[in-house]
Amino acid sequence: MKAVGGSRDALVVFSPSGKRGHFAPGTRVLDAAHGLGVDIDSICGGHAMCGRCQVEVTEGELAKLDIASSAANLSPPGEAEKQFLGDDCGRRRLGCRARIRGDVAIDVPPGSQVHKQVVRKPYEAHDIEINPVVELCFVELDPPRLGEVGGDLQRLVSALQRHWRYGELGCSLSALRQLQHVVREGDWQLTAAVRYGHEIVAVWPGLKQRVFGAAIDVGSTTLAVHLCDLRSGDVVACSGSMNPQIRFGEDLMSRVSYIMSNPGEDRELTRIVRLAINELITEVVVETGVEIDDIVELTIVGNPIMQHLVLGISPVELGHAPFTLANDESVDVLASELGLRINLGGHVYVLPCIAGHVGADTAGVMLAEAPFDRDDVSLIVDVGTNAELLLGNRQRLLAASSPTGPAFEGAQISSGQRATPGAIERVRIDRETLEPRFKVIGSELWSDAPGFAGSLPDGGITGICGSGIIEAIAELFLSGVVNADGRINSDGADRTQRIEKDGHGWSYVLYDGKPKVGICQHDVRAIQLAKASMYAGARLLMHRFGVDRVDRIRLAGAFGAHIDVTYAMVLGLIPDCSLDAVSSAGNAAGTGARIALLDGKSRALIEEQVRKVEKIETGAESDFQDYFVAAMTLPHESDSFPELGKAIELPQRTARPRRSVRRAPAHDGEAR
Amino acid sequence: MKAVGGSRDALVVFSPSGKRGHFAPGTRVLDAAHGLGVDIDSICGGHAMCGRCQVEVTEGELAKLDIASSAANLSPPGEAEKQFLGDDCGRRRLGCRARIRGDVAIDVPPGSQVHKQVVRKPYEAHDIEINPVVELCFVELDPPRLGEVGGDLQRLVSALQRHWRYGELGCSLSALRQLQHVVREGDWQLTAAVRYGHEIVAVWPGLKQRVFGAAIDVGSTTLAVHLCDLRSGDVVACSGSMNPQIRFGEDLMSRVSYIMSNPGEDRELTRIVRLAINELITEVVVETGVEIDDIVELTIVGNPIMQHLVLGISPVELGHAPFTLANDESVDVLASELGLRINLGGHVYVLPCIAGHVGADTAGVMLAEAPFDRDDVSLIVDVGTNAELLLGNRQRLLAASSPTGPAFEGAQISSGQRATPGAIERVRIDRETLEPRFKVIGSELWSDAPGFAGSLPDGGITGICGSGIIEAIAELFLSGVVNADGRINSDGADRTQRIEKDGHGWSYVLYDGKPKVGICQHDVRAIQLAKASMYAGARLLMHRFGVDRVDRIRLAGAFGAHIDVTYAMVLGLIPDCSLDAVSSAGNAAGTGARIALLDGKSRALIEEQVRKVEKIETGAESDFQDYFVAAMTLPHESDSFPELGKAIELPQRTARPRRSVRRAPAHDGEAR
Repeated sequence: MKAVGGSRDALVVFSPSGKRGHFAPGTRVLDAAHGLGVDIDSICGGHAMCGRCQVEVTEGELAKLDIASSAANLSPPGEAEKQFLGDDCGRRRLGCRARIRGDVAIDVPPGSQVHKQVVRKPYEAHDIEINPVVELCFVELDPPRLGEVGGDLQRLVSALQRHWRYGELGCSLSALRQLQHVVREGDWQLTAAVRYGHEIVAVWPGLKQRVFGAAIDVGSTTLAVHLCDLRSGDVVACSGSMNPQIRFGEDLMSRVSYIMSNPGEDRELTRIVRLAINELITEVVVETGVEIDDIVELTIVGNPIMQHLVLGISPVELGHAPFTLANDESVDVLASELGLRINLGGHVYVLPCIAGHVGADTAGVMLAEAPFDRDDVSLIVDVGTNAELLLGNRQRLLAASSPTGPAFEGAQISSGQRATPGAIERVRIDRETLEPRFKVIGSELWSDAPGFAGSLPDGGITGICGSGIIEAIAELFLSGVVNADGRINSDGADRTQRIEKDGHGWSYVLYDGKPKVGICQHDVRAIQLAKASMYAGARLLMHRFGVDRVDRIRLAGAFGAHIDVTYAMVLGLIPDCSLDAVSSAGNAAGTGARIALLDGKSRALIEEQVRKVEKIETGAESDFQDYFVAAMTLPHESDSFPELGKAIELPQRTARPRRSVRRAPAHDGEAR
Repeated sequence: MKAVGGSRDALVVFSPSGKRGHFAPGTRVLDAAHGLGVDIDSICGGHAMCGRCQVEVTEGELAKLDIASSAANLSPPGEAEKQFLGDDCGRRRLGCRARIRGDVAIDVPPGSQVHKQVVRKPYEAHDIEINPVVELCFVELDPPRLGEVGGDLQRLVSALQRHWRYGELGCSLSALRQLQHVVREGDWQLTAAVRYGHEIVAVWPGLKQRVFGAAIDVGSTTLAVHLCDLRSGDVVACSGSMNPQIRFGEDLMSRVSYIMSNPGEDRELTRIVRLAINELITEVVVETGVEIDDIVELTIVGNPIMQHLVLGISPVELGHAPFTLANDESVDVLASELGLRINLGGHVYVLPCIAGHVGADTAGVMLAEAPFDRDDVSLIVDVGTNAELLLGNRQRLLAASSPTGPAFEGAQISSGQRATPGAIERVRIDRETLEPRFKVIGSELWSDAPGFAGSLPDGGITGICGSGIIEAIAELFLSGVVNADGRINSDGADRTQRIEKDGHGWSYVLYDGKPKVGICQHDVRAIQLAKASMYAGARLLMHRFGVDRVDRIRLAGAFGAHIDVTYAMVLGLIPDCSLDAVSSAGNAAGTGARIALLDGKSRALIEEQVRKVEKIETGAESDFQDYFVAAMTLPHESDSFPELGKAIELPQRTARPRRSVRRAPAHDGEAR
C-alpha cells in the first residue's frame, strides 16, 4: 500500500488531483489511492459491496500514458465489478477490485469523490463542499469466542481502527444499546456512522449506504427544514410551517413580553417550537420514506431569541438592555437533549450568535455569503423583524442589527399582511391620473388586465404585503402624493377621490373592495421609521469601516427575494450602489444551515469568522441616532427635516411586560 | 504570587508538605500557597466567604522559626477573620486574609486540604483520598454593559479561567439554561461546579459550599445508595432496597431467560431498576434535606447483567456462550441519559467490567482491595450468585468467575432463605446426641438459652440462610452424619429421630416447627456443587499464577461478612490459608463505588488495572472441570470419589428461554 520508488514498481497517476506514486504490481487501485491521500469514496472499505470507488482509466499526459496502455495495465474485470458496472464496463472500474499491473492513469470522477461539491443555485454565493461530519464505515467482525477478552464495542472499535485508520473512538449510548443486536442481525457485518472521526453515533446491520441530515431554519414567522443526503449533498425534501409561537406574539419582542409577564412560559414556547420542528421532520420522512433513524445530524439557525428558545433558555435577558445572550458560541449537543427526534445518537449543531441582536441566522447568512473571502466590500442585509447587517470584506467585517420593527413584513400596517396569496405585492401609480394598478400574490395578471378578477386566488384581495407597501409608497412619492418628509399631500385630493380623509388623517385607497386596501399616513410613517433604521445601520457600519459607497449589496431572506431593488433605492432603504450590483441572496440563513450540515469544516470557519467580526450595538452608538434622523426623508438623507425624525419615537426593541395577555389554548400535536 | 528569591522577600514554609518559597511582603498566605502548589482548600477563591483556607501559624524547625516570630510576621487578624474564627482566633488564620510580613511557618491542617483522606473502616483495605471530579468555584462577574461582546457563559468562563486557572471550559446544557437567572439572582456572584476541570456542570447563585455524589451498588438481590459529601468524603446517608427485578427471576440467569422468552422485556427490567435507584436517591434526599440538584455525580457498580440493564442494554448475549459483553470499558454519561434523577448536568460513571462474568462489581472490589498495591498474594472472593475471584499481587492479577449458583444465598435449598430476620444463621450440633442449637437473625440468644422463644422476631423461625447452611452441613460432617462424599449417613437414624427419611431421601431436622427447617440430601449436594465450583476456580487461578498457597484471603460481600471462616475451611470453600489471614472485606464492591466517586484519580487507576488483569473463563478451561470434580468431597479435594463429581451435573450459567413465565403485574412507583 506504500508508494515505493523503483524500476519494478508501476507508476500510477491520479486525476484530477495529479497525485502519483509507484506501487508494487498487484496493488489495488483503491489502496494506491489511499496511500497517496487521493480523495476517493468507499463505504464498504474495499469489499466490492458499495460500488462507490468507481474510477476511469484515462490518459496521463504528463506520464505519457494512453488509454489503451492504461487499460491493459490493470487486472481484467471480474464478476464483482460486472455486477456494478455491467458486462461491458469500458473504462469504468471498481478501485477495490482493479489491481495494478503496470503504469496506469486513473481518473476519480466527481461522483466517486468524498469531498465533492454541490453546485450552487443561481442566487447562492458559492458551491458547497461536501465534508460530512458523519461518515459511514462498513466493517466485518470475527464472531467472538469463549474466553476472548473485550466486548462487542471493543471489537468494533478495533476493526474501525484497523480498516478505517481511526484513532480513539467513543460510542453513543444509543449505538451501544443496539450494537449486540445489530452485529448479530448483520451476521457480523455492520455499518457504523462515525462522527468527527471520534464517536460512533449509530450502527446498522450489513452495508448501509445513505444517511441524512436536516438543516433547520427557525424563523420567528416561519420554520423550514431541508432534508439532505449527507454524502451527495442533495436536498431530498423540504418542508415548512408557520412558527406556532406566533400565537404568543406576532413579533419577537411581544413574545419576550409575554414570557416576562408569564414567568415559566418560555418552556411552553420551547415545547411548541420543538414540536413543530419534529412535525416538519416527520413530514419529510413520510414524503421520502427515509427512516427517522437514518437522520443522524441537524443544524439550526435562528435569531438569538429563537435560538435561546430552541435550546430551552429563557430569552428574557434579550428583551431589555443590555440584551445579554446566555451564550454566543455554537452549541453541539445530542438532538435528544433538545427533544428533537432523529437517530438517538444524532447531534444537533446550533450555529454561533454574533451579538445580542445578531444571531445564528446571521452567522448562517455570513457562511452562505462568505464576504470574508472577497476583496470587494459587501453590504449584506437580512430583513426580518430587525434588519441584520454585515459589512466588509477579507480584511475586516462588521455586524449590526437595526431595529426596523415588523413593518417590512406587513405587520403594524393598516392593510398589511404577510406575503401569502391575496396580498398585493406589486404597485404602479399613474403619475397623471393617480390611478393604481397592482399585482396580487396568486395571480399572474396585473389588475388592469382583462380577466384579472377571475384570476384572483380564493378569498380575493386580502391586503398588502411588504414589497407592495414599499412600491406603493415609492410610487406615491414619485407621483407627488407623498412628499419628501413623508406627508400625504392633501392637494392630491383635488385630483382623485382615492385620496381621502378619515379621523386619523389622509390616506390613499389602492383597492376599494372588501376589505378596502390603502396606505394611510401612519403606514408611511412606519415605513419611514423602518427604512431610516435600516439605512442608518448601514451608514453607521460604512462610517466605521471607512467607506462612502459599497461595492455590492446582497439582500437576504424572503423580503430580499421579493423586493424590487429600484423601489428600495427610491425609498432609500439601502445606500447608493450600482443597481446591477444589488441582488437577492435567497434564504441565505437557511443556506448557511445547509452548508454547516454538509461541510463540517465550515463550522470551524464560521466560528472563527464570527469571533473576528466587529460587533456594533446600534443602541450604544450615539451617531446611529443622527444617521437615523437624517434618513427619515424620502428618498435621501437630508438636513432639511431634522425636526421630523426627532418628533417620531425610534422603533423600540425593549420588551415590556404586559399585564394581561389572553393566551390561546395549547393544542397538542397541532403546532401550526 | 510568584516565589522570588532575594533578601527582602520573606521565607514561607508550609507543613505538612514542606514546600517553601520567598514572597514579597504583603502577599496573602493563600496566594503563596497556590504559588507553591500547596494543597489548600478554597471555594470562594479568596473572598473570605467560605472559611475553607484556615491555616495555623506553627514552628518551622528547618527554618528555625518559632510560633511567636511566625505569628508576628503575619498581618493582624481583621473583622472577616474574626467572623469565621472568633475574636480570639489564636494561631488560626484565614489564608486569604493573613498577609505575609516576614519569615513564617504555616501548617495546613487536614480539614483545609482539598486532597484529604477519609480514614478507612476496620474491614476496608485502605483510606480513600479525596480528589472529587467536580469542584466548586465561586466567582464574581462584572455586570454586562450594552455593546459588550459575549454571552453570560463567556463571561463566566473567562472569570473561571482568570481566577481558577482553568483552560478550555465547556458547559452542560442544563447549566447554560439556568445561567442567566442564577447570575442575576446571585447579584453577579455565583458558584460553578466544574467537572474534570473542563466542563461546567451546574451553577448556583452566590456561594455554594457543599455538593454531593452517590455511590450505587446494583446487586441482583439488593440495591444500595451511599450519599457522600464530595468535599469531606463523608457518607451523609445511605439507603437500600430489594432489587425489584426479583419478580422476573430470583437469580440472574432466570431474569435473562425471562428476557429471552419475552423479547423487549429488558426495557421493563431496566425501567424498574432505574425507578428503584431513583427512589433510593429520593430517600436519602428526604432524610438529609439535601436538594436533588446538589447531587452532581453518581458512580455505579454491578455485575455484568445488572450493569447492562442499568445502561439499557439487553443482557441476552450474557445468557449463553460465549457470554459476550456489549462493552467492557467504563461508561461516563449524563445521569439523565439513564433516567437517573440528580442535577440535570450531573454525570454517572459506571465502572468497567473485567470479563463476561466478572463485572463492574468486581472492578469495585479490586479498587477497594487494591491487591495490585501489595507484594503478598491475595485471593479475593466475592460471593453472590456466582463467586468472583481475584488472585494476585503487584506483579500480576488474575480474575475468574465460578458458577456457584445461588445456594450460598439460601436459594434452591429446601428450607433456604435470604439472611433476613427469622433465618437460622449459626448452627452447632452435639457430636454425641446429635442435638442442634442455633441462632436466628433478629435474636441475640442461642436456641438452648432461657427465653429464646420470646426473643424471636415476629414470624418466628422462617428458614435457614447461607451461613446457617454452611455451618449446619459442616457440623453434620464433623458429627459424622454427613460423610466425606456428602451422603447423609442413615446409620445416624438409630441415634436420633432428627434423621428421617421421606420420598426424596434422608434429611436432618434442625427445627421441628412450622415451617420445619432441615437439611436434606439435595441441600448437601447443592452446597457441595457450589463450594466445589468456588474452590475449583480458586485452585485454577492459583495454578495459573503458580502458587500452592495464598498469603491472605479476603471475603467480600454480605456472605463474606456473615460466614464463619472456620466452617468455610471445614467445608473446603476456600483454599488452605492461615486462619488469621482470612478476613471479611465488607461490601467491597460498594466501597469501590465510593472510592470512584470521591477520588477521580481512582477511575484511571481501575481502568488501567482492569486492562492488565488476566481474565480466565472457567468454562473454557479444561482443568477447571478436573479441579471441580476433585473438590466435591468434604472437606478436601481427594481422588477417592471421582465418580461422585462426574455423576452430578455442573452448575449451569446458560440461560434457557422459558416458555411461559407468569409476569407479576408492574406497580408504578412501587419498586421494592
